Amino acid sequence: MTAATRREHDLLGDRDVPADAYWGVHTLRATENFPITGTPISAHPHLIGALAAVKEAAALANEELGLLEPRKAAAIARACREIRAGALHDQFVVDVIQGGAGTSTNMNANEVIANRALELLGHAKGQYTHLHPNEDVNLGQSTNDVYPTAVKIATVFGVHALLDAMAVLQDAFAAKAVEFRDVLKMGRTQLQDAVPMTLGQEFSSYAVMLDEDRSRLAEAVELIHEINLGATAIGTGLNAPAGYAESVRRHLCAITGLPLVTAADLVEATQDCGAFVQMSGVLKRVAVKLSKSCNDLRLLSSGPRAGLGEINLPPVQAGSSIMPGKVNPVIPEVVNQVAFEVIGNDVTITMAAEAGQLQLNAFEPVILHSLSGSLTHLRAACLTLAERCVAGITANTEALRATVENSIGLVTALNPHIGYTAATDIAKEALATGRGVAELVLEKGLLPADTLAGLLRPEVLAGTGEG
Amino acid sequence: MTAATRREHDLLGDRDVPADAYWGVHTLRATENFPITGTPISAHPHLIGALAAVKEAAALANEELGLLEPRKAAAIARACREIRAGALHDQFVVDVIQGGAGTSTNMNANEVIANRALELLGHAKGQYTHLHPNEDVNLGQSTNDVYPTAVKIATVFGVHALLDAMAVLQDAFAAKAVEFRDVLKMGRTQLQDAVPMTLGQEFSSYAVMLDEDRSRLAEAVELIHEINLGATAIGTGLNAPAGYAESVRRHLCAITGLPLVTAADLVEATQDCGAFVQMSGVLKRVAVKLSKSCNDLRLLSSGPRAGLGEINLPPVQAGSSIMPGKVNPVIPEVVNQVAFEVIGNDVTITMAAEAGQLQLNAFEPVILHSLSGSLTHLRAACLTLAERCVAGITANTEALRATVENSIGLVTALNPHIGYTAATDIAKEALATGRGVAELVLEKGLLPADTLAGLLRPEVLAGTGEG
Amino acid sequence: MTAATRREHDLLGDRDVPADAYWGVHTLRATENFPITGTPISAHPHLIGALAAVKEAAALANEELGLLEPRKAAAIARACREIRAGALHDQFVVDVIQGGAGTSTNMNANEVIANRALELLGHAKGQYTHLHPNEDVNLGQSTNDVYPTAVKIATVFGVHALLDAMAVLQDAFAAKAVEFRDVLKMGRTQLQDAVPMTLGQEFSSYAVMLDEDRSRLAEAVELIHEINLGATAIGTGLNAPAGYAESVRRHLCAITGLPLVTAADLVEATQDCGAFVQMSGVLKRVAVKLSKSCNDLRLLSSGPRAGLGEINLPPVQAGSSIMPGKVNPVIPEVVNQVAFEVIGNDVTITMAAEAGQLQLNAFEPVILHSLSGSLTHLRAACLTLAERCVAGITANTEALRATVENSIGLVTALNPHIGYTAATDIAKEALATGRGVAELVLEKGLLPADTLAGLLRPEVLAGTGEG
Amino acid sequence: MTAATRREHDLLGDRDVPADAYWGVHTLRATENFPITGTPISAHPHLIGALAAVKEAAALANEELGLLEPRKAAAIARACREIRAGALHDQFVVDVIQGGAGTSTNMNANEVIANRALELLGHAKGQYTHLHPNEDVNLGQSTNDVYPTAVKIATVFGVHALLDAMAVLQDAFAAKAVEFRDVLKMGRTQLQDAVPMTLGQEFSSYAVMLDEDRSRLAEAVELIHEINLGATAIGTGLNAPAGYAESVRRHLCAITGLPLVTAADLVEATQDCGAFVQMSGVLKRVAVKLSKSCNDLRLLSSGPRAGLGEINLPPVQAGSSIMPGKVNPVIPEVVNQVAFEVIGNDVTITMAAEAGQLQLNAFEPVILHSLSGSLTHLRAACLTLAERCVAGITANTEALRATVENSIGLVTALNPHIGYTAATDIAKEALATGRGVAELVLEKGLLPADTLAGLLRPEVLAGTGEG
Repeated sequence: MTAATRREHDLLGDRDVPADAYWGVHTLRATENFPITGTPISAHPHLIGALAAVKEAAALANEELGLLEPRKAAAIARACREIRAGALHDQFVVDVIQGGAGTSTNMNANEVIANRALELLGHAKGQYTHLHPNEDVNLGQSTNDVYPTAVKIATVFGVHALLDAMAVLQDAFAAKAVEFRDVLKMGRTQLQDAVPMTLGQEFSSYAVMLDEDRSRLAEAVELIHEINLGATAIGTGLNAPAGYAESVRRHLCAITGLPLVTAADLVEATQDCGAFVQMSGVLKRVAVKLSKSCNDLRLLSSGPRAGLGEINLPPVQAGSSIMPGKVNPVIPEVVNQVAFEVIGNDVTITMAAEAGQLQLNAFEPVILHSLSGSLTHLRAACLTLAERCVAGITANTEALRATVENSIGLVTALNPHIGYTAATDIAKEALATGRGVAELVLEKGLLPADTLAGLLRPEVLAGTGEG
Repeated sequence: MTAATRREHDLLGDRDVPADAYWGVHTLRATENFPITGTPISAHPHLIGALAAVKEAAALANEELGLLEPRKAAAIARACREIRAGALHDQFVVDVIQGGAGTSTNMNANEVIANRALELLGHAKGQYTHLHPNEDVNLGQSTNDVYPTAVKIATVFGVHALLDAMAVLQDAFAAKAVEFRDVLKMGRTQLQDAVPMTLGQEFSSYAVMLDEDRSRLAEAVELIHEINLGATAIGTGLNAPAGYAESVRRHLCAITGLPLVTAADLVEATQDCGAFVQMSGVLKRVAVKLSKSCNDLRLLSSGPRAGLGEINLPPVQAGSSIMPGKVNPVIPEVVNQVAFEVIGNDVTITMAAEAGQLQLNAFEPVILHSLSGSLTHLRAACLTLAERCVAGITANTEALRATVENSIGLVTALNPHIGYTAATDIAKEALATGRGVAELVLEKGLLPADTLAGLLRPEVLAGTGEG
Repeated sequence: MTAATRREHDLLGDRDVPADAYWGVHTLRATENFPITGTPISAHPHLIGALAAVKEAAALANEELGLLEPRKAAAIARACREIRAGALHDQFVVDVIQGGAGTSTNMNANEVIANRALELLGHAKGQYTHLHPNEDVNLGQSTNDVYPTAVKIATVFGVHALLDAMAVLQDAFAAKAVEFRDVLKMGRTQLQDAVPMTLGQEFSSYAVMLDEDRSRLAEAVELIHEINLGATAIGTGLNAPAGYAESVRRHLCAITGLPLVTAADLVEATQDCGAFVQMSGVLKRVAVKLSKSCNDLRLLSSGPRAGLGEINLPPVQAGSSIMPGKVNPVIPEVVNQVAFEVIGNDVTITMAAEAGQLQLNAFEPVILHSLSGSLTHLRAACLTLAERCVAGITANTEALRATVENSIGLVTALNPHIGYTAATDIAKEALATGRGVAELVLEKGLLPADTLAGLLRPEVLAGTGEG
Repeated sequence: MTAATRREHDLLGDRDVPADAYWGVHTLRATENFPITGTPISAHPHLIGALAAVKEAAALANEELGLLEPRKAAAIARACREIRAGALHDQFVVDVIQGGAGTSTNMNANEVIANRALELLGHAKGQYTHLHPNEDVNLGQSTNDVYPTAVKIATVFGVHALLDAMAVLQDAFAAKAVEFRDVLKMGRTQLQDAVPMTLGQEFSSYAVMLDEDRSRLAEAVELIHEINLGATAIGTGLNAPAGYAESVRRHLCAITGLPLVTAADLVEATQDCGAFVQMSGVLKRVAVKLSKSCNDLRLLSSGPRAGLGEINLPPVQAGSSIMPGKVNPVIPEVVNQVAFEVIGNDVTITMAAEAGQLQLNAFEPVILHSLSGSLTHLRAACLTLAERCVAGITANTEALRATVENSIGLVTALNPHIGYTAATDIAKEALATGRGVAELVLEKGLLPADTLAGLLRPEVLAGTGEG
């Protein structure tokens, strides 16, 4: 017994597709041609939503320009809104890594939307004489303007979601910066004891880094608002009627709520992947700094007895299948790995962008896949780090204070008062004898006791007080 | 109404897990801690099978050494064999990107195997007093020797599958090399017309490249046979009884059919990710050359009228949603993208390997994920390229011959007979006037007609005949 | 006979340095410690100038704050101005790849400036009791604020130089866009014939890309204006007197002419390399698009007889040591290679930035070296491409027009008039028979001759006219 | 007054070159065309030597085959031997980054050798009628077989030099492994205290890593022995007489002492850069592990008072321009940076290799430049690390032993004797109370005192004794 099918036709001939499938013959061939990752494009829901938004905007523009019957336009628009609301995502089945510059993704969308619209108009799926995937849903469009536009909108939504998650993490670090503002500790450069600071200053740095990165990301996403809808095949706008580009952009702005602008030079815009490369570069920056922060958290929490032992990360799972009681910094570790993945993705995106030729870049599918992966994984990493790690960090305040009092780096603060040469001698003697800087300075009569005490006050050392 | 649960306990306290889950409290916490990609480790079936193989070998070794009751060992072994046969993979639910150096993957395996073994022994899931995930399934092991060993075995199986696919592609190219052995064409260097060759030589190059790459890959996989089972936590073998490392290796060889060897220095082996970096480097080599070959296929098939038009790729889907009749090189394009992904993965793996600290590399999960992705996607790319593209390529033989006869590069063949300087003058005149090299040589009386004809015989030009 | 020397002293003891060297014992040790590349930091003249600017600004600020005698400050400032004017660069001898977070570069500068200042004050080199490298030239400073600040200033100057070169290249492309504005040709997507365009549109794309990249670069350089001078060792400003940060910034703005701002959070600023990662990411974007443009130039000029043959690059050297008359696209090729280097440098910079720990990134020297290399090589590549290639490009106008008239892609323009299905049939028949689209359309009576002629007018096809 | 010149001629016309230059018109144009880095190819002396070896071998083969007069061959051979001995390297002036697939490097060699041979024959430089750069020095050759062959030979020599340096570093680590064989310390995984080991085991790991990497490198260099000399332009051997490939290979083996083999498929060999990609991948492996080792050295030597303080690196220079007495791990830091550079170079090489098209890869110059940089910088890094750091490392033996005695990780050793659950309880109590594991075990009567003492013997814990 075989499943029910319907017959569809394309350039290469006839094929049977499952009767209940919303996708059609083009999608069928694409699934056969690209059995690469097993991951369908529905894994990137922002992309599916963006495609539906583009198709709805195109239908409305075509209706407005008198090219598409209102009832067809209405059916297409309603199908698109359903998809944007989450319906039919399981019908977007072509592989995330695909040839054809996104044509298969575009055709998958055209077919699903056409068949859903046919249903809404009271027709059976596949009755394309009533409403056609290419002639109606794709009217006035080309994959080469639809797909880059959808990728950009998907990216914008992905960035917004990431920005929110980064804000959560920033707040978590900032809260700790306040909590630890009076915890004095040794600062370190090149892993060697340097001069005193507060743990609050250290955590504040992580918050400030995120704040800066959010600003950079917010700037970078602005560049993604430029679209090439109306360019059709190569940017010359062939077959797009006068007024189409402006109309479709206006509708798309309304649908998405985004301030999209049409590129001034559509030929250039159609072949250019620079905005994706730059966005990925900014995500790489975010990844680099998240990774650095997690490296620090792991280092500062090393121990419990043979490490730095400055802070304690909250235990979230048993750490070892063999070592009883061991708890590991698993949350920072997973963030590090996401960072490594984002940095690798940046190379993939770079190579794909460089490989574009003449009027088009055929490799945008892997750009979308990598960029979307970077965005969603960074988002998850930020939220996990904030909620399962940073929020629960505690400080070993007394031990930290002791390292400052015991440190040789204190001598730096005396530098302007006893001179670099004398200070160096004190440092060498302290290191050789294990004695403290303050007692050596007093013993040698280099400074009066009260002056010394004033110079070594915590708020002076950490630069947090009036000095 | 709530689903049935059972209560489990770990270092952090009590938690309820679904009563029908084979995984337990450690896995539960891991799924909560690592909500990163949404992709579970079951996406890498070679890894699941390898974990089961390691656990079975450990049970048998522990039984052999008198550390584990035979009935427990038998139950564990049977559970492992079921998993290797494909059962229970849906129970391997922790995220592919996870902190903890693979501990969560190891504990997921320990729990699933323990619960299945409990069932086989007639106990309910969770009755760990009868058979314990840590004390029995993980007996004498540490994540730090189990996980790297499983990753290596999974990699070996992945490489074997890739080698088979590369052989298929090599054969496809080799068949075309035979088919096109008499098709004369212009060779090109730096995209400029160079000297004649045959299309068969060109396709033979692609086959030879694959043959070489297969040899390199076969060499690289040998290095992956070195395991650190018996190292336990850091390579000192703490808690592993005498004879354990050798016994478990012997059983694992028998189970997997692989010639595994135990590393001579287990401390070094436990922290070292060099073999993965090198394997990824070789995969990158494969990717580079596959991509280069696909670039060539796309270039040689450019047209149909304004391109090189030397060969025709079989059409596998309609190429454009707007340009009627257009057929695009979608199969080579998807292979290019896989190559870009593999190259990006190599950077991810490199960074993860570099980030290892002291006695362990905590970032092997992302190494496994990236390496496994590279292996399986390259395999799919090779098979797709062979079957959906190379096998159906045809040549435009007449047009190719015409470009040779019309070419200025022919003059190179006359170089030894008329001298570089005279040859240069002929070339310049041919280029300026649009005339042919042969007629100019004859007109100037530089060579007798029969000598010239002999020098310009195809088999001489292409170096394929006796000359 | 040995060269004259003078004896100097540091933390590790006494050493003899050449009597005529302006550098001293710290530099001597650094040259011994870092015999890595053989390339001295003087290879980056922007860095040397920037260091001198920082040191001059510091001397003036210290004088202003009453910490440095006016005659010492004047001597230091004069020495710095001499260096900025090009003097003494040969005294900057430490290796471009060096440990120590730039300390050796800073000490090299301190020593050279001190010894030159000593000379100006009438003392012999090495008479540091009169003016000391650390106590006077480095007064109130740390490598950790001096070096990042100097790297930023050097980067700004490097970017400005690159922007100028990009403008030259953009103008060269734009001039060709005007020259070729009426040259009709086939556009291509995925290397397959698509629809018509003009060669002017194609060259305009390259100009527009550069214009966009210049905008992005101009934005990115703004972020580099944020400095951390006054942070001293870790950002707490220990030993920097009140008012110092503001004073030194003001002087440095005046000296460099740059709108420098002091970071709001100096602890964060001292450890952060995000601005360099982002700048490198933008340079990678520039590289990607330059490389893509050069790939196109090489492809469009392929031939002379068996290639696309659309354009001719000016011959700049003989192309082959064996093939007479061969001329190769050597200028685009060298640009491609610079692009590959820049992309590799980006990975180096990324890894170095990620490796920062706690309060400092010790790896800024390799960041500076890679970033400076990317900037200067991209600059040279742009100028070379503009002057030795683009300016001399000519078009094969007639051949290009013929490919349009002969093309199947023309049928796309008829799509809205005869329908996608009929257009597809025409395309298939044209491809199978070798006949022209126009004649088939007329033969089948699908359109009247005058309508057809109107649709196929060049300005309509290329979207350049009123339509 | 102008310098003396001589006039030379090429495809593009006449040019004056300095009368005393050994290079000629082709080199002159190349220096004008490629003003990119300012670094001449003489920066890679192995390449210059390799080019001379190839040219000498070719002259001898041509003489043997009766194609070149013995006196010409002798003069060429003598010029080549002089160059290999170090002469005339300053005449190799074309830029390391150049277009043309190495043609300019090959022509630079042809011209220098021709002019030196002319001198040896008693002629003036430039008198090419007596001995010609192309017709004699380049006889039977093409850049496309000469250049890749020279790059391979240069690479082999570079690898040999690196292998020697790695052996020096390995020996330095191995000596420390012996010296520290009884120094007990805590092993760490994921930066958390794990179980005991010896410092000797830790340093032995670094030695073993290097030993493995040397093996991998020695294997990889074997693949570089395959050359394509005799391929001429595209591998078809056009213009190379019968017997030439075998003769020139034989001479080249004798000259270089290397077991070179001619590739079986010269068409494939001429376009293939796989061996360079793989070699770079192995160098990346070396870099990754060197960097990891240096990360460890920096971490273990952190302090002096607020760090791990396990070992002391020998001070090689003052560490800070502001912090008296501070000494930093500058040698490991410079090695880290070399590693980052090598990893970036690998991306450059990968992109260059992927960009090859059809019968040639035009981007081998940047491959050579990057590969040579990686080799020589890694060599310098290994020697510097061995001599200026590892050899002088000392251990803080007593402090290390104390961390073991104080550690909670000791409980792991009791696991098989008291069970994972009881051990976990002990670990938790020890952590909460700050008390020692041993005292808690005795207090609770879990083990007799003598059994406990036996289990905690150092040689048992570290797995170094009989147990």
